[in-house]
Amino acid sequence: AMVDKGVDFAQYFCTYAFLYHQKEMLCDRVRMDAYYSSIFENKHHFHGKTVLDVGTGSGILAIWSAQAGARKVYAVEATKMAEHARALIKANNLEDVIEVIESNVEEVTLPEKVDVIISEWMGYFLLRESMFDSVIYARDHWLKPTGVMYPSHARMWVAPIRSGLGEHKKGDYDLAMEDWDNFVGETKTYYGVDMSVLSKPFSEEQMKYYLQTSMWSNLHPNQVIGSPAIVKEIDCLTASVNDILEVRADVLSSITLENTRLCGFGGWFDVHFRGRQEDPAQQEIELTTAPSTDNGTHWGQQVFLLHPPVRVSEGDNLSLSFSMIRAKENHRLMEVEFGCGITQSSGKLPRFRNKFFIE
Amino acid sequence: AMVDKGVDFAQYFCTYAFLYHQKEMLCDRVRMDAYYSSIFENKHHFHGKTVLDVGTGSGILAIWSAQAGARKVYAVEATKMAEHARALIKANNLEDVIEVIESNVEEVTLPEKVDVIISEWMGYFLLRESMFDSVIYARDHWLKPTGVMYPSHARMWVAPIRSGLGEHKKGDYDLAMEDWDNFVGETKTYYGVDMSVLSKPFSEEQMKYYLQTSMWSNLHPNQVIGSPAIVKEIDCLTASVNDILEVRADVLSSITLENTRLCGFGGWFDVHFRGRQEDPAQQEIELTTAPSTDNGTHWGQQVFLLHPPVRVSEGDNLSLSFSMIRAKENHRLMEVEFGCGITQSSGKLPRFRNKFFIE
Ligand SMILES: Nc1ncnc2c1ncn2[C@@H]1O[C@H](CSCC[C@H](N)C(=O)O)[C@@H](O)[C@H]1O
Ligand SMILES: Nc1ncnc2c1ncn2[C@@H]1O[C@H](CSCC[C@H](N)C(=O)O)[C@@H](O)[C@H]1O
Repeated sequence: AMVDKGVDFAQYFCTYAFLYHQKEMLCDRVRMDAYYSSIFENKHHFHGKTVLDVGTGSGILAIWSAQAGARKVYAVEATKMAEHARALIKANNLEDVIEVIESNVEEVTLPEKVDVIISEWMGYFLLRESMFDSVIYARDHWLKPTGVMYPSHARMWVAPIRSGLGEHKKGDYDLAMEDWDNFVGETKTYYGVDMSVLSKPFSEEQMKYYLQTSMWSNLHPNQVIGSPAIVKEIDCLTASVNDILEVRADVLSSITLENTRLCGFGGWFDVHFRGRQEDPAQQEIELTTAPSTDNGTHWGQQVFLLHPPVRVSEGDNLSLSFSMIRAKENHRLMEVEFGCGITQSSGKLPRFRNKFFIE
Repeated sequence: AMVDKGVDFAQYFCTYAFLYHQKEMLCDRVRMDAYYSSIFENKHHFHGKTVLDVGTGSGILAIWSAQAGARKVYAVEATKMAEHARALIKANNLEDVIEVIESNVEEVTLPEKVDVIISEWMGYFLLRESMFDSVIYARDHWLKPTGVMYPSHARMWVAPIRSGLGEHKKGDYDLAMEDWDNFVGETKTYYGVDMSVLSKPFSEEQMKYYLQTSMWSNLHPNQVIGSPAIVKEIDCLTASVNDILEVRADVLSSITLENTRLCGFGGWFDVHFRGRQEDPAQQEIELTTAPSTDNGTHWGQQVFLLHPPVRVSEGDNLSLSFSMIRAKENHRLMEVEFGCGITQSSGKLPRFRNKFFIE
């Protein structure tokens, strides 16, 4: 599927042109601490080195790279945010080290290959936004054979969860349909048009919106009711776009809570900064977006809800088949499926399969 | 400025592909009653005639036209909503009269010219969405020389208003800036980067967002504190795109309330169904979106707020210079300016001029 650049800009990049949005990321302490530590506790990767920052946004990662001793940093940003990055870099006296380039990284020509590619490319549930494609492109074109990736690894997790949100959403959906039925009645009475043929498509539209669209959530750890499972591991140095176009995994999870309800699944990710095998990090840093009481991130978790929930109990075994593909109309959005079989002490429940949209 | 069709679809048309959004319009009783009456109280314009419905959406206006006796209705709709319209028309047994065409009206070829062009093309403050361009195009290509336009006339109004929203918005803006100042302090302390150079652009961004973006509002009539003035009159039969690219008017308004605050301006519109001079309506129908206690519409009014308000009193005279142009980056959005001079019994206040964005 060809991506129309203008459309992509209107739908995706535009939000990043707002300082307000950059600030949200800059205020995410977990994110900031992880990148900060990954750089300043591994200065050997930066001192005297050349760095490419893919999607520099406000310029923060480029600035840190320079402060950690980089000889030269190429800071590439597709949006007008590049102008703010340039001003920020100048105000912090780093304009001799950092070159800001306003461009898609796919269209940039650098004067040299670099020792480090740093980027904060992760979207909801890791792959939403599909920005890692651009990092792969940059790596394949501009990273030295000896170069390191920041971050170097990434993983996607899923886990069974409990949540009250499902009932809530189901209630919203039911209300919308009640309202629709009223509307059909009134339109017939007052305006002589029978709209009932649209009831099914309307309910499908609303079902998709209320029940099948995943939600951002900041889950409490005690909402996770079973063992989390890894559905994808990515080595940022070697992964190809092909490797991430689809994610498919059959995994097991066992319920760890007595007599509870399986209300759906949570999805999150972590990334690690480990350098490369021949040139490892001195301090390995982890950035995790797992459910946490104190260390929530702006990514939160994506929550995929079942309607209705299923009674489960400690020791029940879930066999999950997970898949995630890109949405047909927008390669930066995702379609997810959860297949689930449940084995309880009393026997197997019928396997079910649910489709979701990450919008 | 060339309009990229893909971008236009992503930014504008996409919303109309949802039944949810069509339903909002179909539930607007004032809107529905006006079109319904305009058709059924003027059956002579429809009986045995050919009709083009520009942007048929759910198909409602095409259906009414057919029910009023049209011989043939061409119902053109750019989005996938066309499929729902087709189903609705079939379910109401009108598929022999109404032909649904999924297309931009600009790209359609009809087998004949039509007697009537009907369309509900009005956006917020009349011209937002710039859809009337498409109606003009359709008229110039497909309306018979003797044809009539539904609606036939449109007007834009402005009036001085009072409102508590301004303080509210100013409060939001102040909070956002306080928060920013904290952020600048913390980013310097914890992460060694001085963000203060971005304070000015951030405040400009937030000012635009909180203070300069017009708001949808359902004004109470008693919030209108002076005489409303017409800033534009459109004859739908003769207006050209050039006539609506810019709206400029110098108008007068006098304050009708004692000792009150001029908090900004409200903008709304009305349209009329009068047929054409040689072939007038039997019943002239008006659809107004003026402030009203009982007959509010989904259009509401657009509100443009002053920060801070100005003390005014009965008999004060406002000389307003109003202008509205299309936004450079998106021809369906608008930029508005209100210049205002106030003459009070005690003398003239200094003239001011404010710019707003209709997003
Ligand atoms: N292909 C591409 N080329 C250049 N910039 C891109 C890009 N894809 C995404 N971006 C930019 O990458 C940024 C990702 S957000 C991260 C911003 C910054 N590095 C930080 O950590 O705070 C956005 O500003 C976005 O506009
Ligand atoms: N140039 C164009 N060609 C075809 N359809 C258009 C168009 N510009 C706007 N539209 C469609 O016009 C509709 C306007 S909303 C009005 C819908 C319907 N006539 C009703 O009164 O309820 C939308 O569905 C939009 O998709």
